[in-house]
Amino acid sequence: MPEFLTLLPPDEARALLLSHLAGPLADSAALDSFLALGRVLASDVAAPHPLPEFPRSTVDGYAVRAADTFGAGESLPAYLTLIGEIPMGAPAALTLDSAQCALIHTGGMLPAGSDAVVMVEYTQQIGRGDLHGRPGEIEIMRAVAVGENVISIGEDVRAGQVVLPHGTLLREAEIGGLMALGLTEVRVARKPRVGLISSGDEVVEPNQLAGPGQVRDINSYTLAALVTRAGGEAIRYGIVKDDFSALQAMARKALSECDAVVITAGSSASTRDMTADVIRTLGEPGVLAHGINTRPGKPTILGAAEGKAVIGLPGNPVSALVNGFLFVLPVVEKLLGVLPRPRATVMARLTVNLASQAGREDWWPVKLLTNYRSPITNYQLPITNYDADPIFGKSNLIFTLAAADGLLRIPPDATGLSAGETVEVVLI
Amino acid sequence: MPEFLTLLPPDEARALLLSHLAGPLADSAALDSFLALGRVLASDVAAPHPLPEFPRSTVDGYAVRAADTFGAGESLPAYLTLIGEIPMGAPAALTLDSAQCALIHTGGMLPAGSDAVVMVEYTQQIGRGDLHGRPGEIEIMRAVAVGENVISIGEDVRAGQVVLPHGTLLREAEIGGLMALGLTEVRVARKPRVGLISSGDEVVEPNQLAGPGQVRDINSYTLAALVTRAGGEAIRYGIVKDDFSALQAMARKALSECDAVVITAGSSASTRDMTADVIRTLGEPGVLAHGINTRPGKPTILGAAEGKAVIGLPGNPVSALVNGFLFVLPVVEKLLGVLPRPRATVMARLTVNLASQAGREDWWPVKLLTNYRSPITNYQLPITNYDADPIFGKSNLIFTLAAADGLLRIPPDATGLSAGETVEVVLI
Repeated sequence: MPEFLTLLPPDEARALLLSHLAGPLADSAALDSFLALGRVLASDVAAPHPLPEFPRSTVDGYAVRAADTFGAGESLPAYLTLIGEIPMGAPAALTLDSAQCALIHTGGMLPAGSDAVVMVEYTQQIGRGDLHGRPGEIEIMRAVAVGENVISIGEDVRAGQVVLPHGTLLREAEIGGLMALGLTEVRVARKPRVGLISSGDEVVEPNQLAGPGQVRDINSYTLAALVTRAGGEAIRYGIVKDDFSALQAMARKALSECDAVVITAGSSASTRDMTADVIRTLGEPGVLAHGINTRPGKPTILGAAEGKAVIGLPGNPVSALVNGFLFVLPVVEKLLGVLPRPRATVMARLTVNLASQAGREDWWPVKLLTNYRSPITNYQLPITNYDADPIFGKSNLIFTLAAADGLLRIPPDATGLSAGETVEVVLI
Repeated sequence: MPEFLTLLPPDEARALLLSHLAGPLADSAALDSFLALGRVLASDVAAPHPLPEFPRSTVDGYAVRAADTFGAGESLPAYLTLIGEIPMGAPAALTLDSAQCALIHTGGMLPAGSDAVVMVEYTQQIGRGDLHGRPGEIEIMRAVAVGENVISIGEDVRAGQVVLPHGTLLREAEIGGLMALGLTEVRVARKPRVGLISSGDEVVEPNQLAGPGQVRDINSYTLAALVTRAGGEAIRYGIVKDDFSALQAMARKALSECDAVVITAGSSASTRDMTADVIRTLGEPGVLAHGINTRPGKPTILGAAEGKAVIGLPGNPVSALVNGFLFVLPVVEKLLGVLPRPRATVMARLTVNLASQAGREDWWPVKLLTNYRSPITNYQLPITNYDADPIFGKSNLIFTLAAADGLLRIPPDATGLSAGETVEVVLI
């Protein structure tokens, strides 16, 4: 048992690993903005023109010269001559003179000569004004200041302003912002390629019959899904037998073709040591941390070779996936150069006491229980009315994670958590 | 201004809308499990065989007959004859007799005749036992009970047990669970087709030059991204002029081809009324709610025709997207039949006072500020150490949402929130 002589705290181990990565990938690709949902901006996006490009009304009402409304009120209205209606989507074919107004709709372009808009609620049409020729008269019952109910040119976005910095994850709103500026193509970070190798004499492909003593490969599929969801490209290198040379050859191939490599070991201690030995031969600095003070995941190996992360995860599928969240996900995010974002969490009340070992960080799969299982409460707040119910399982079967809504962390400085405590659950 | 005579509370309006939908789509598709990340199970998944399929060791150690270890301790060890090593991935070619043991690795298959495993930490090899022929002797310094350090057949999953119910969203762990059972193909719900129509004389396509008075279409792209992320298929029907017949024709076409239709109106009140009028002609029951007591989103129209949702959203891009989260997302989820899940939220301290109108539900875009902008703190807990800073913007420009990490809700029964209050922010 030469391993685990020193167990690094997980945060320290992660920082050490990330410090050995060259940084965000240098290459990027041009992509149709509409297809860029979930991608990461590779360069700053600046506004090619101001928004709005013309003075717009923010209300339905009448475009006026503000000076014409000064002093107007309900008891002493101002009377303006209606000279026309501003069409939507086109400049007005009219110019406002003193004591004149024009009907305008929300989003309409202010006509020349006007500098404010009076909301329709504070106006009244007198007699039967005919917009096409004979002018009507509009009673104005509230004064407006210059610029009132108007967005001026560039008030939202100035020309040249950086509206989306590089590293921005493109969500719905960012896609919309790009469209508003006519930026139908965008440069995004290349998806980091993560090579995945499963090892173990007992492991067979999922489409194979698992004979006595054999189990199907889970880890390279769960980790591929994790990499995909994180914005990377997962490349499976299949299953390698517990043989140093075979594992070394496959790891070298994966390292030459990918930006990071993850090896999930077989179940036994000897195969975990073999993973560390292989990582030592791949390049400098090799193994950075062998043994992390976390549960599950103690046997996790963090390494780097030639500026690329090489991670060895335990064969236990729960351990492999939880440690994938802890160590593989940050690697993908660093390679993408994505700006940090808040983790999705919920607060919940712990249902039972949970013991932990001082100095060790525990991650418990938990089910969140409450009345949220009615569709409507999905949208009602407070939505924190959860109980966090740890899922206990002797074998750390993958189905304990499939049943979990999230992972509950017991920090290293705690020796446990008490039933009834409010805890934070990271959604998975 | 005939609209907004009665404003429905949003939760009530949503429940009303969902009650008029026929329910989850009946059709499903077979899909490679590896490609099913983010899809929803259309039928229950039962285990075709037990897990594990053979008794497995959970530790590295020695397979024994438990009875041979009874009474063993450090001061009085038991001595067992080592008769071999269990290979990984194959059944042992040996049968354990009384007073015998076999070296076994984590995940190894217990040999016939054995019923427990002693951890290697509590054993010691005596002399130079040679596994290939001459037996060695193993000192056992701790007793084990029958079944100790063993997972028996079906202990994790019984044959026939429903391991994933229909409606399950397939995440990493579920994909792994399917692989563990050899289920490389899975039936998933068809992606609900949502037809998106933008209307407004002033609206042009993002790849067009926006002339004076014109703005580019944002809403059908943000909503398409929202539908995509929710697991649906977005179908854009382009931009329709403010013309009743044209809008009606396009809405009819979309309704015949899709499972739900969303129309974003032009900016002015008249075009919003036109949307309601069109929805009334599409089928029964037509308009269900015209005006929701929420901000943004007061002019939202919820309708149904022939069991399909038809939603009219305001043209304002922030309003359209926020109301997309509130009303379009639940429609997609109901059509998918996905089981409710906790919303991703964080708790944060409000930085300023926010006023609200009693009875109205407000949704504020907020930026989450704190030291989380260092990559490591992304993974450190407590990760709730946020300030929620509302983003104020006169014009509700889409970039106010692009700058936001989430939406802060002020519930209808509040007349505002105070600076320093702990609030819940729904991540977007």
